[in-house]
Order: sequence, then C-alpha cells, then structure tokens
Amino acid sequence: TLARRSRGLATIHSQTSIFSPLDAFPERHIGPDEQEASLMLSKLGYDSMDAFITDAVPPKIRVATTSVDNVSIPALSESELLERAQALADQNKAFKSFIGMGYHTAVVPPVILRNVMENPAWYTPYTPYQPEIAQGRLESLVNYQTMVKSLTAMDFANASLLDEATAAAEAMLMAFISTAQKKRTFLVDSAVLPQTLPVLRLRAKGFGINIVVGDAVAALEDQNLRSDLCGVLVQYPDVNGSVKDFSSLAESVHSVGGLVICATDLLALAMLKPPGEWGADVVLGNSGRFGVPAGYGGPHAAFFAVTDKLKRKMPGRLIGKSRDAEGGPAYRLALQTREQHIRREKATSNICTSQALLANMAAMYAIYHGPAGIKRIANKVHGYTQAFTSAVASLGYSVENTAFFDTVTLDASHVSGGASAVHTAAAAVNINLRQIDDRLVGVTFDESVSPSQFVTLINIFASAASASQLSLEDIKEPIGSAIPEPLRRTSEFLPHPVFNKYHSETEMLRYIHHLASKDISLVHSMIPLGSCTMKLNSTSSMIPLTWPQFSAVHPFVPFDQVKGYQTIIKELEDDLCEITGFHSATLQPNSGAAGEYAGLCVIRAYHESRGEAHRDVCLIPLSAHGTNPASAHMAGLKVVPVKALQDGSLDLADLKAKAELHKDNLAAFMITYPSTFGVFESGVQDACKIIHDNGGQVYLDGANLNAQVGLTNPATCGGDVCHLNLHKTFAIPHGGGGPGVGPICAAEHLAPFLPRHPIMPAKGDQAIDSVAGAPFGSASISIISWAYVKMLGGKGLTDSSKLALLNANYMAGRLSGHYNVRYKNENGRVAHELLIDLADFSKHGLKVTDFAKRLQDYGFHPPTCSWPISTCMLIEPTESESLEELDRFCDAMIQIRQEAEDVITGKQPKDNNLLTNAPHPMSVIAKSEWNRPYSRQTAAYPLPWLVEKKFWPTVARVDDAYGDLNLVCDCPSVEELAA
Amino acid sequence: TLARRSRGLATIHSQTSIFSPLDAFPERHIGPDEQEASLMLSKLGYDSMDAFITDAVPPKIRVATTSVDNVSIPALSESELLERAQALADQNKAFKSFIGMGYHTAVVPPVILRNVMENPAWYTPYTPYQPEIAQGRLESLVNYQTMVKSLTAMDFANASLLDEATAAAEAMLMAFISTAQKKRTFLVDSAVLPQTLPVLRLRAKGFGINIVVGDAVAALEDQNLRSDLCGVLVQYPDVNGSVKDFSSLAESVHSVGGLVICATDLLALAMLKPPGEWGADVVLGNSGRFGVPAGYGGPHAAFFAVTDKLKRKMPGRLIGKSRDAEGGPAYRLALQTREQHIRREKATSNICTSQALLANMAAMYAIYHGPAGIKRIANKVHGYTQAFTSAVASLGYSVENTAFFDTVTLDASHVSGGASAVHTAAAAVNINLRQIDDRLVGVTFDESVSPSQFVTLINIFASAASASQLSLEDIKEPIGSAIPEPLRRTSEFLPHPVFNKYHSETEMLRYIHHLASKDISLVHSMIPLGSCTMKLNSTSSMIPLTWPQFSAVHPFVPFDQVKGYQTIIKELEDDLCEITGFHSATLQPNSGAAGEYAGLCVIRAYHESRGEAHRDVCLIPLSAHGTNPASAHMAGLKVVPVKALQDGSLDLADLKAKAELHKDNLAAFMITYPSTFGVFESGVQDACKIIHDNGGQVYLDGANLNAQVGLTNPATCGGDVCHLNLHKTFAIPHGGGGPGVGPICAAEHLAPFLPRHPIMPAKGDQAIDSVAGAPFGSASISIISWAYVKMLGGKGLTDSSKLALLNANYMAGRLSGHYNVRYKNENGRVAHELLIDLADFSKHGLKVTDFAKRLQDYGFHPPTCSWPISTCMLIEPTESESLEELDRFCDAMIQIRQEAEDVITGKQPKDNNLLTNAPHPMSVIAKSEWNRPYSRQTAAYPLPWLVEKKFWPTVARVDDAYGDLNLVCDCPSVEELAA
Ligand SMILES: Cc1ncc(COP(=O)(O)O)c(C=O)c1O
Ligand SMILES: Cc1ncc(COP(=O)(O)O)c(C=O)c1O
Ligand SMILES: O=C([O-])O
Repeated sequence: TLARRSRGLATIHSQTSIFSPLDAFPERHIGPDEQEASLMLSKLGYDSMDAFITDAVPPKIRVATTSVDNVSIPALSESELLERAQALADQNKAFKSFIGMGYHTAVVPPVILRNVMENPAWYTPYTPYQPEIAQGRLESLVNYQTMVKSLTAMDFANASLLDEATAAAEAMLMAFISTAQKKRTFLVDSAVLPQTLPVLRLRAKGFGINIVVGDAVAALEDQNLRSDLCGVLVQYPDVNGSVKDFSSLAESVHSVGGLVICATDLLALAMLKPPGEWGADVVLGNSGRFGVPAGYGGPHAAFFAVTDKLKRKMPGRLIGKSRDAEGGPAYRLALQTREQHIRREKATSNICTSQALLANMAAMYAIYHGPAGIKRIANKVHGYTQAFTSAVASLGYSVENTAFFDTVTLDASHVSGGASAVHTAAAAVNINLRQIDDRLVGVTFDESVSPSQFVTLINIFASAASASQLSLEDIKEPIGSAIPEPLRRTSEFLPHPVFNKYHSETEMLRYIHHLASKDISLVHSMIPLGSCTMKLNSTSSMIPLTWPQFSAVHPFVPFDQVKGYQTIIKELEDDLCEITGFHSATLQPNSGAAGEYAGLCVIRAYHESRGEAHRDVCLIPLSAHGTNPASAHMAGLKVVPVKALQDGSLDLADLKAKAELHKDNLAAFMITYPSTFGVFESGVQDACKIIHDNGGQVYLDGANLNAQVGLTNPATCGGDVCHLNLHKTFAIPHGGGGPGVGPICAAEHLAPFLPRHPIMPAKGDQAIDSVAGAPFGSASISIISWAYVKMLGGKGLTDSSKLALLNANYMAGRLSGHYNVRYKNENGRVAHELLIDLADFSKHGLKVTDFAKRLQDYGFHPPTCSWPISTCMLIEPTESESLEELDRFCDAMIQIRQEAEDVITGKQPKDNNLLTNAPHPMSVIAKSEWNRPYSRQTAAYPLPWLVEKKFWPTVARVDDAYGDLNLVCDCPSVEELAA
Repeated sequence: TLARRSRGLATIHSQTSIFSPLDAFPERHIGPDEQEASLMLSKLGYDSMDAFITDAVPPKIRVATTSVDNVSIPALSESELLERAQALADQNKAFKSFIGMGYHTAVVPPVILRNVMENPAWYTPYTPYQPEIAQGRLESLVNYQTMVKSLTAMDFANASLLDEATAAAEAMLMAFISTAQKKRTFLVDSAVLPQTLPVLRLRAKGFGINIVVGDAVAALEDQNLRSDLCGVLVQYPDVNGSVKDFSSLAESVHSVGGLVICATDLLALAMLKPPGEWGADVVLGNSGRFGVPAGYGGPHAAFFAVTDKLKRKMPGRLIGKSRDAEGGPAYRLALQTREQHIRREKATSNICTSQALLANMAAMYAIYHGPAGIKRIANKVHGYTQAFTSAVASLGYSVENTAFFDTVTLDASHVSGGASAVHTAAAAVNINLRQIDDRLVGVTFDESVSPSQFVTLINIFASAASASQLSLEDIKEPIGSAIPEPLRRTSEFLPHPVFNKYHSETEMLRYIHHLASKDISLVHSMIPLGSCTMKLNSTSSMIPLTWPQFSAVHPFVPFDQVKGYQTIIKELEDDLCEITGFHSATLQPNSGAAGEYAGLCVIRAYHESRGEAHRDVCLIPLSAHGTNPASAHMAGLKVVPVKALQDGSLDLADLKAKAELHKDNLAAFMITYPSTFGVFESGVQDACKIIHDNGGQVYLDGANLNAQVGLTNPATCGGDVCHLNLHKTFAIPHGGGGPGVGPICAAEHLAPFLPRHPIMPAKGDQAIDSVAGAPFGSASISIISWAYVKMLGGKGLTDSSKLALLNANYMAGRLSGHYNVRYKNENGRVAHELLIDLADFSKHGLKVTDFAKRLQDYGFHPPTCSWPISTCMLIEPTESESLEELDRFCDAMIQIRQEAEDVITGKQPKDNNLLTNAPHPMSVIAKSEWNRPYSRQTAAYPLPWLVEKKFWPTVARVDDAYGDLNLVCDCPSVEELAA
C-alpha cells in the first residue's frame, strides 16, 4: 500500500501571481494531490494522466479539451463564491408571502436548523440500506411515519415522497391499480392546488387514465363517471381555504369501489377531523410547514399514508421494525422486494431517492413541539385567520369561505380597482397575497407571521378600501372556531413518548446527536456505493442554503422578486448544458427517477409532434437501474430488454435485432453510460446510431456522469436527452435518502418539449405538463450544485472526473488478485467504479451480504450490493477520497478476503465465522459469554488502525424477513410500552 | 425515581393572546416543566415554589420580586431576538480594516467554521480535566502547542492564554520571578502594541515592578537599568511594521540574567527567523489570524512558548502525553500541581479559563493549510505589502520601515491635509487605516484582502495625493523580499504528520469529527460540574456570533462604525447591573479570574483615591477558589485566610478578629456567595458589615450567581464589586476550557475606577489601566449573554435561578441516605449545588477519583472532584437539566454506591473492582483475556439504559504522575514516528 504518507496541497506550485486566490476549491475537493496521483498512475503503469485517460475512455467519444475548461466555466474561489452568492441573495427581495397554496414560511427551530440541516452527520449519509449502521435515521424516519399516521389517523405512512403533486399522482396510480387497471376515470375536485393538476395530467397520460376535473360532489352524481371511477382526489382544506365535509363523498366513492384520496395539511389536522376518521383511503400532502424552509419550492417531504389494506401497495420507502441476530429490536427498510429494481417495468412508481432529510426535520419539529406545542401553533394560525377575517369584514370585504383553518378568500369588489388595488397596496409594503382574479384575493397565515406583520397586512386592506389605518389594539382576540363542529378534531394525536419528552433545547439537542451517533456518514469514512457517487459536499456550497434570502422564499412569488434565484438557475442550467453537450435544461424534476420520467415524456411528446404518437417501445439493457423500466412504464412505454455480452458490454447484435424488429414503434433506448457494470464501452455511438436509424431517441441515464465531465458527454455519446443526479455528480448531499435534484438536459430538437409549469414564464405550447409541484423543483438545493460547478470551474470539473477514474482504477488494481474484478475494457481499465464478483464464495456458504456486513466491523459503509448483478459488489470511490482512504478500504477488503479463506479452508465453520456473524456491535463484544471460534479482539479490531478509529454498528445483523412478516412501522405508544 | 414520564411545554397554559410569541425561550431553556417542578417540590415536602425558595434563600437577603422581572428586563422570543440582532448587526458598518496592531480579518476555513466553531460537540465541553473522555480536544490542544512550538522554534508551548496583552504580563512576571523577585526593572520597547502597555503597567503595579518604556536597544546601554533588569519585551515585527534583528539585544539581556520576551505573529514566523533561533526566552502573541474571526476584539487564543528551562514555570494549561492503565498513549493536562488552586496566594498568575476553543480553531487552521499552505498565505500577505509599498512610493509616499512583513508606515507629509486627508479618503470607500499622527499612516495586510480591495486601497493614496487612479494591471508583482536576509527563516516548520495529511475538506471534516467523537460534551449528557454551571447554550444565542457584521470587526474601529455592538454592550452592562444591584459594569476582563483581578485593582484604586494606598490586606475564606488568593496577590494584596465553621459557614468570629486585627490595613474581603460549599449562609450581610466597619471593601466572586438572580444579589448581600462568569451563569459555552467573559459590576463609589482602555471613550482619570488588550474584551461572545438575558427576560432569569436551586435540592434529596451530603442550611436545603463527602470510603481503598472514573462508564462527566474539599464531589445540575436527566445521574451514583458496597463487604477486591479499574474503554472490554472479578457486561452496561445510549471513554485511566515526570507536550514528528 501507498498509504501512511503525508500529502501536500495539490496546487501549491501553481501560485503564479500574488493575486491568485488562496482558497481555490479544486485542491480541497479532490482527495489525492498531484504526488499521490502520480504514484497511483505509476502503480497502474502510466507515466501521465493523459495516457491513463486515453486507455480508460474510448478515444472516439472524447471531446475537445476546451469543451469544459476555465474559459467555458471560469472558477471562483471559495470566498469569491460566497461573495457572489451574497450578492445574488441580495437580489432576492425579502417579501412576506401570504400566498399559501401548499407552501409556507416555516419557523425552523434553531436547534434543528443547526444540528440537523446544517450538520454533515445528518446531511451526508446515504439511504439506510445498511440498517446496522443507520439505526439513528431509521428511528427518525419511523418517528416521521408515526407523526403522519397519527395526525392523519391512517394505518400506515411511508418515509416520504418527492412533493405533494407527485404524491397525488402516486395515489392516483394506486387507485387505478386497485381496480386492476380496469377503471380509468379519476375525478379531481376543482379546488385542489392548481400545481397538482398538470402533474396528474401528465402521469395519467402514460397509463391512459382519464382525468375529470370538477366539483367532486356534483360530478359524482354522474352515473357514467361512477361506473368507470377508480378514485377521487379532494383537498382538505381546499385551495381557497374552505373546509368541507367529505364523509358522504367517501361513502359514495367507496360504494363504486373507488379510492378516496385526500390531499391535506398536517397543521390543519391538529384542528380538523382527520381524513382517516371520515373514510379516506390515501392521505397525502406537504410536510414542509413542519420546520422546513420554503426554499423557493423545496425540497420538502411529501407525506403519504394509507389504510391497512393498502399498506403493501404503497409507493416509496417504508421503515419497519424488525429484530437483529441477537433478538433485539432493530429498524430497517421494509418490503424492499417491492422496490422498483425488483418490479422493474411492472412498477407503476419509480420513486427511489425521496426526501429523507426533510422528513427527519419535520419529525424533529413534531418532537420538539409535541402535541401541545403543535396545537398551540395551530391555534395561533387559526386565531390570526379569524382575527384577520373579522377585521377585513368590518372594512367591507366579504369572505367567500366561512369554514376555514388558515386561508380565506376575500371579495374585493367594493374596492375601487378591485383585487388588483389590493395587490398593489400589498406590494408597496413588501407583501405577497394570492392572486386569484380581478375580484378575489387569497390570504393564508402561517406560524411565522408576527403581530406587526399582521397589522401591516390588515392595513393593506384598509388602504385599498380607503379606510383609516388600524393598530394592534383595534384587533379583537378571536372567540370560538371557524371550523364547523362536526369537522373538528376530537381525537388525540402524537401520544407516543418520543413526541412528549424532548421539549427543552438540551433534550432535543441530545436526542438529535444521539441518533446521529449511530449512523455512518461521510464524516466517518468513504461510502463507496457504486452508482451513488458519495463525494465531498463542501461547506462553502452548503452555507448559502440557509440564508433567509434563499430559504424563506415562496415558489409562486413574482419573478422580479427572485432575480438572484433566477440567475443561479439560469447559470446552472447553462453550465449543465456545457457539460452534457446539450441545448437546454430544466431543474424541475426532484430526483433522478423523476428526471428519467420527464425525459421519456419529452421523447414521447417529440414523437407525437411528428405524428408518431404510436411509438411506444423502449429498449432497455437488462443491467439498467430499476428506475429505468419503471419510468418507461410510467411514460406509457413498453419495455423491451436488451442483453449484455459476456464481457459486460451491450450486445449490439441483440440491440440491432430488437431495434429493427420494433422499428415502426421504436420510441426510445435508455442507456447508462459508462454502463452500470462500470465500463466505458466503445460501442455506445454505434448503439445510438442503430436507434436513430430506426426512428428512436436515445435517453441517457446520467447517474454515471461523474466519469464523463470534460472527457466525453452524453451528446457526443449519441444521446438526445439525459438526466443528471445533482445529488451524485454535482455534490448535493444525499441527506440519508434525499433530497435530490434530477434535471434533464436535451438536444435542440427536444428543447421545446421540456416541462412547463402553471406559474412559469410561457414555454410554448409544445412543452409537456409539469413533473413537480414547484416550477424549479427543489430550487434551494440547486444552489449547492451551482456553487460546486462555479468553484471547481471547467478545469476542476474535468480533473474531478479524471481523478474519479484514477481512484477506481487504482482500487481495481489493488483488489485484483484478491477478488474477481468482473469487467474491464480492452485496455484493462474500469471506469469510475468497479464490479467485484463474489459468486465463487457461495459454495462455501458466504454471500455478498456477509462481506458487506463484515465491512461494517471495519468502520466502512459497504459498497452497493447485489446490483446490477446479484453476486457482485459495485465500488465507487469518487475523486474526493484520498489515497490513504482508498488504501484503508482496500486493506479491509483484503483482510476480509483472508478471513473468508479461513472459512474456505475449514479453519472457521461455515455457519459461525467472522463474516456470517458480522457485524459485531458493542453489545455483542461486551457479552459475558463468548462461544465463537475467534476472539473478541479479532471480531472488533481486525486491523490496527481500528484501535484509533472504530465506528461501531449499534445492532447485530438485522432480520429482514421477520420484519416484513410482522410489519410494524411506527413508534410504540405509551400503552404498548406499558403492556 | 420520578423519571421515564413524558413532559409538556412549561407554559402551554399561559398562552393568553394569539399575539403572544410561540417561541418564548424560557420553556426551552429550563429543563423541568411545571409539572415536573411540582413533583420535585412535593418530594421535598413543599407545596409551592415560594415556600421552597423561602427555605433555601435566607429571607433577609431576598430582594423585591420586582427587582428582576419582565418590566425591568422585558423578554424577547427567539425569533424576536434574532430579528433584533439582525437589526443591530445592520448598524455595524462593514468597513475593511487595514489597521493591524495585532488584529486581522481572518479567513475561517468554512469546514472549521461549521464543524468546530458552530458545532456544540466542540463548543459545549468543559476544560479537559477528565482525560479519558476528552482525548479529542486534548489531542487538538497538543496540535496547537506543537504548532506554536514549531513556528516559534521554542521548546514548550502552552494550550493558550487570554490575549496577547495579558500573555505579555504573564511573561513579565516570569521574568520577575526568575530573578527571585529581586530585580524590578522591566524594559518595554516603545514599538510594542500600544494596548499591551497599560496591561503591563497595571500588572507591574501589584508586584512593584518598574516598567521602563523606550527604545530597547538604546535603553540597554544604561548600566543602572541593566543592574536591576529582570527582562525585556520586544515586538517582532513591531507595531509600525519594522522587522529588527534582536540577537545582540538578547545576548545583552542574557548577560545580565534577564529574560528576553518576544511578542510576535505566527504568520510572520513563516518568513522570519523564529525568536527561538535568536535567543528569546519567552515568545507570545495572538493566534487569531489563524482562522479565528476578529470579533471586535476577541476571543482569540494567545500563544505562549518558552525554553526548556522555563517549562515548569509557564503559566496556563499545558497538555502532555502520558499513558493509560493499559500502557497505551493518552493525553492529559500536565503539571496540574502548578495550578493556582494549589499555589493559591503564592501564585503570580491566576489564569484558569483560557481560550481552548479558539486554540483548537487555530490548530485546525494550521492542519488544514499545512506548512505549504501557510507559506503561501505568508507569501501573499508579504507580496501584497510589497506591491502596495512600491505603488504608493511611486505616488510620493515615503515608507518609514524598509524591512517589513505585512505592515508599513507611510509618510503622508507631501499630501495636502497630511495623514488626515488619507483617512478621509479611506473612510469614503469604507476602509480603515491605522491612525498614528498627522503625518504617518499605518497599513497592514492580511489573508482576507482581495485584489479589488487592494486596488481600492491604493487609490485612496492616489486620491489623497491627487494622482490618477490605478488599476490591477498597473500593479507590479513583487520580486524578492522586504525581509533582510539574516532575518529570513531558513528552518522548516510543522513537519509533523498531523499538519501534512488533512488538506482535503473530506479529510479535514473526518479528523474534526473523529476528535469530537472521543469527547463528552453537553450534546451527550449533563455535566454536573460544581461551580461551573454547565447549562444550555442555546442555538439562537450562538447564531449571530458568526454573522460577518459581528465577526469581521476590528476592535479599534471608530465608534460610529459599531453602533450595533455598542448597543449590545451597553444593554448587557445595564442588565447585569440590574441583576447584581450595582451601578456600573465593564465587559473588559476575559475570564472570571481576570475579573477578580480587575475588581481588586478597582478596590485598591478606590483606597488610593482616599489616601489609603497602604490598605493591602485581603481576607479570603480557606474554601475560596484558588483564583481568589492568586488574584489578590497579583493586585498587590496580602492574603489572610478566614476559617469556616463545622457546618461550612463562615466563622464570623474569626472574620471579626482578623478584620479588627488588620483594621488599619484592611483592603478587602473576597467571598463567594452562595459559598463554595454550596450553601447560602445567612451571615453574609453581617460579614460584610464587619469588613465595612473596618475600612475594607467587599469583593464578591460571582461564580455562583446562578443561585441568586432575582432572589438576592451581590449588592444586597453587602458586596461592593463582583465579577460574573458569563460562561457560567449567562450561558456562554465553555468551549472545552474557554473562551470566557468575566465582567465586573461595581457600586457607585467604585464606578469611577473601572478600567479604561487607550481607544475607549475617556473614562475619567480615576480609571485603572486596562486588564485586556481589547477595549471590550471578547466582545463577540458578549452577544451570547446579551441574547440569553434578553430571551429569558427578568422572569425567565429568576425562574432559572429557582429551578437551579430546586434541581440541586432534588438531587440532594435523592442522594442523601446513599451519600453524605456535607452541608445544608438550617432548613436542610443546599443552594444550587451540593457537596457530597466520600471520605468514609477511603479506608476501603476507594478514592474520589474511583467514583469519578466509574461515572464515566455510565456515560456521565464526573462532578467537580476534590474541590473545595479534597474528599468531596461538588455537584451542580443547573436549571437546564430535566428531571429525567437528574434521575439518570442519581441512578448512576446510587448504583456506584452499591458497587462500592461490594468492595466494602469484601465481595470485590480492594484493588481490582469496578471502581478502581474504571473507566472501561471499548478496547479493554474487547480484549480476548478477561481476569476481573466481574463481567464485561457489568463493566460496560451496569444500568439498562446504557444499552440504548452509551458513551465510551476511549482510554483507560490515565497516569498523571508518569506524564509529569516525562513531560512531552507536542506531536511526534515523522522521525519519531519512524523510530
Ligand atoms: C443508474 C441510476 N439511475 C437512476 C437512479 C435514480 O436516481 P434517484 O434515486 O435520484 O431517483 C439511480 C439512483 O441510484 C441510479 O443509480
Ligand atoms: C468560584 C470560582 N471563582 C472564580 C473562577 C474563575 O473563573 P475563570 O475560570 O473564568 O477564570 C471559578 C472557575 O471555575 C470559580 O469556580
Ligand atoms: O439507490 C439505488 O437504488 O441505487
């Protein structure tokens, strides 16, 4: 090994002017310095980086070295970036928004802001697929599920979806499937949030669902509609603020076998009879107002809850309780068999990355406030709305909805100038109200409104009505409730101890840190998850995110208030186009999978525009990530699999045969490049040509873009559209399973079809409907990728890809001989990740899982396991890991290989050895009795450096089957604990 | 026990108006809610808080309930506070300062900012007196010591002092002592930092040292001076920027047996021959520019390094390497026997709290940049200074100092209007320069200066000289060096691996988190350190601190640029006066001990002003904290100890006798109230009267103010002046051993004597000289206490004291019967802390340490041990701990008592049992062999809740004696590691 040496700053020698900044980002971002890189190159037999890259990346797809350089993307130093970010923040105008429509200015409890949202221990881990080293955030997500379940009064809740609009679409699909895809009419009440509708429309299209929008109660009178009805979506309270009794509607829908889907608001449910008590089958919404910044649209966690009978049909991740090998309780991801990588093209949902970090924040908010605190917040919000309503009524505004929680719709007809006079008066005092029409104005209250803002708000209405100004003393405290008696909540909520203990900041802080202490994240060691690109998420890129000028912005504010945001969005889109070689981009999709779906919809729209709407076949390699076939299905495409050759490369003959066979209906080919096997295959352009020759379009899954930047690009490879995972290549942290951003970039001929949004500037009539509730998706975290790109600059971006390739090849070199590195290219090179095959060990009773769990004992998060090949591990180091860390990981793998040898030679029994018994948590090591054929010392400290730095799994191996059989997905209540 | 119940928000029922804020701070700050408080009261036999308080606090010293209430100090909610703080921040003008004089705008590496300075795991621990649960920050402080040692080329460096000025005073005392206090002349070069001088002057006074200020080289010609010389202080580079060769000066001073003390700058030492190479005996300075915000004066860590022969005389804390019970390496505080609580009135230094957090930041900065990075920064700073000098020379400004590092003094005589024209031009573009006189202007560069600021700066000089404006292109890159050849550094620095590894952000992040993971802090569990008041440090109070408008402010800027800061300072001073009952306050002292010294100097000045300069006797109870007699000694007072009675109270008869005996010379009486034994004694006013009757003044040590707020106050108790530890009662976090703020509050007759400062508004000629380098001490962290006071409001402050008393009495109740609670008042009540006496266990071989170390196995930081009584533990819970946490701690103590019983009854051997073997780190539990008379399980998990939440000590019991014998206080070098 080359490790245990000291390293210098990579670019120390290149300081040519005293005026060059000293805080250039590339040398902090890239793990190995130049000396280390040379060492690694020489180990691999190269004397230059260029020679290595030429061997690793097929020359025919290489792009000019100027395509991504410091001219095309100039580099800012860290302090320059922060200065620029501040200047852009200052261009966003700090208006107070009373717009509502599902987005609120949350009050983030400072202890949660700093210790969850701004804490790398919470924002850098991956999805908790390895439960033994993820009990902290698994517990937190169970808290979230419990919170949702309790507030909605449903039986099961999942661990979050991307946003309210896509959650509604997922629910629609559940309704469709629950009729065995026979009934195709889905009724949407006209008072749902307007941004939900286009998302439903686009999703409905792929499945041939027929959406009917109208007054739901009235529409249900129609027998034709009833006979084909799969479900109904209502909003509770609705977009105008009205709170309606949907119990007879529910009965009516159930009587024809449909599902009742209720979009709602968690805070309102502190006061409203919960949907679970009046017959809803699916309840969903945005949990953002539980302490998550508005962020110009997101990210926020959508919640999703169902009745018991639907629990195994629920999309998204579900955390359940199981037991570990010692019989103790342990959480883990439940029902993994349902995930799209198993259901593939039969899946009706492609959700993968969701919104774990934001779900955790919302759960922590509920824990911090507890039921009493949440009631108090609901009381305030409702009380302000009542007091406001009385005050403006006395100014002559009539209120359209008498039953409300936090939102009222006011008639401004009596005002000269009508609604627009009110909006003008509002703008003059930096306030946004909901724009409805010439007559009506909407006002929504949230927790953040201060008494003085309240008075300013009322005086807008006074001014518009030419009445004299009021002061706080003029306002009467409300009495009673504006919620009709039968719709008031009578049941208690959040009785579980976890929501009733941690109310002091001290206790809250300790709970947050206690949970974090159980989990491996990037603060500990490399997380070499293939296809996940777990790289450095720099502090400089994270800092601006929580500045109020970025975090407290409503997504529907007028564009002239968000010039800073718009500049960032535009610059990031432009840079992504530069990098991918494409023409246009959109940041709307909230995950990679959402990007895939959007991209395929764009392809469909393109075909349609050319009168080829019938093209509906999508070729997808068998090795593709499960989201690919799932997304294709959702876009209404028929998936036809394509084989791979023995050497891992695409079977071009099979591709050609299938393309030609489906020639008339060929819509698309979806390919990941470099392939999910971790190789750049040289035939990619040929493959794309075959597709184009047969009338298809090429969708490039950009999950592996980290191997490409500045070396090749999706356009050069032959693609027409691609998505990128900003939470992979572009350094948005994974947040323990989200947030993510999955922008798509498209060639010029596809650009007109990129998604529109009801509130976005006109995009032309060829644009597809939106794929997210917010116009720019999870806008706030796009800042992270923007900062990342700007700080690396073109050269740094390209160098990052080079180092990602070098790191992976160095590891392949070290592990070869010990393990079977399954695929390499003709020059013996892998791409930015490598696949090692453990199949040979199975005859000795050792499975991939055994190696993975044993790695935990060495303080490492295991690589991606059993995907894309069940007997393999997919290892991706990224450019951010230093040589020493690569060596530490390789040392661990090699040591485990030796431990395995003892099993193979019979020194250690097949069923009782270091691997099959792994991981070894502290509680096992500390047991008084010890009947294993190896020592505690060997179990816990197999390599010397573990003595100084050891991360302990907190439970023994978790039993998945048990948990799935006994599905428990919420916290125990007081009664259960007592029992 | 009362634990395991759920708790609600304390004030949920008091929400009388919808307009009341929902984020009132008291309910988050105070651990127990009202229901828990009632439970505790009833356990103690009270039916109301009032009844309890009446029994706990002597009625005769009680103050009116209106003295500290929401009228005298109105409460702001958390969001209101943050809004106010933002408004005040906006009142500070964002000028760029080129003032120098020891303060710089640091560039804080973002990864250090967020993960050290803004991370409670780093800012909430206490001084690492318990090394087994503090190896992380001990290692970090050793890194700091190593950094200082290496850059200065000295033999030993300590773990920080309060600031450069006080460090210089400490050095002066070392010089004085090194002549056995025989030689009284201390020579100070006239080009030292001007703020250092008054601090030296005041300190010299107490010891009768005679300070001579002048050109050091010239002054040394004087034989009279030479014969009485104990030492010389020079500044290198000096305040005007000159770099001088002091090697012959050093020889000359050594030839008469004096010490050469060099105040210097760590960054300059990357280029300058280090003082250790030209004969300095003591080297000191401010490490702030190594990544610590200027903060309007602090806090920053002063560094302090000495030659080998002085190592055991060095003031402050020294971290050394020792070994643990298993023979492994372990760090710990070295030479604790030297600390003032041992040396007491013989001490010449009273340093206790120092600047650990800032020292850690500086060390992390050096680790992040490494020697190459630091050289590069020095190059930039020097290069900018050179380029600037050439540019302004061409504009006609002559440069006074040709040898310089980062500072030049320019002659502006040729400019019409002279220096003041230059300053006017600077102010017009928001730039501050150093004001010297009508002719000279000082300019200092630091790492933060950007090229555009550089150009703006030059153009100030162009404008003033009526020359045309320059642009960056006009500036020539410097060649060569402005440091004379013989003064250039040739030796390498920071060769140790720790400074040469963690240069990528990923590696840095992991190192920071790895160290933090070894240490117990408030994020884990209560830290019941008696006399230390380890309470909640709220996030809201911490947030404003790192806003640039507060953090990037030079302490010597004109007052009109810091209106926000001045408001905060004024409001905090006023509130502290309200709370203490005194007339005036100053925030200047940087620690409690510095406050004591300042207060005693004020008393001396008062006596002097009345022609009673001879009054020099200070009565101090034997139980006083060691800083008290040390401070008295430093203020030139003679300490006369006063006895305590059997019941712990002051022996009034002894006091009276001694007061009368010393009547003619009585200067002061120093008393801690409630006493260090944890009781409010009712005789305090009588005691003070005795003192006053005999012509003395009363100094009240306010360390225990947390027991008093709103219930009594130092003025009512009879005091004339007191200090407060803002890092105790007023919630500044302890930072692992500092920063601290030790303001003093004084009665009206003493107010005229409060310290002045060279740059502070005139204070009248009775003011004493300053006690710190910065006018308002560690101004930036005063914001934390300001926020704390404002958010609690008067009622919350008073309630906090009540709950602090209740928590302590509840614990006394639970522990009585199991342990001997040594002192209670006549009603059976303790104050806010309790003393348990473990003397009876010693005959069974169990010492206080054994109980303390065993507590670590339960996940608790032990209470204060063996102080103020060697056989005791002093336990202070604070109001922030919840009932559940109090019970957890008491459960642990009671369980340990049972474990001790097994030793007493002989079940477990005296020398091999759970207590004497404690703590049990993971590495011990995981050992293959186990030959102890108890199980691993019992060692590691003695109580059930430890299974869920266990904090592991990382080393076994540390051997102090071994470490002191083999004093090693720096990191191993590459060579040592290889050997
Ligand atoms: C190859 C590939 N495609 C698509 C995705 C889906 O991305 P997301 O999880 O953001 O939906 C992944 C995620 O791991 C992936 O590895
Ligand atoms: C009673 C008492 N007085 C004075 C001090 C000194 O305070 P500081 O450590 O801030 O110098 C302490 C510190 O622990 C103390 O407990
Ligand atoms: O997260 C993945 O399914 O790769």
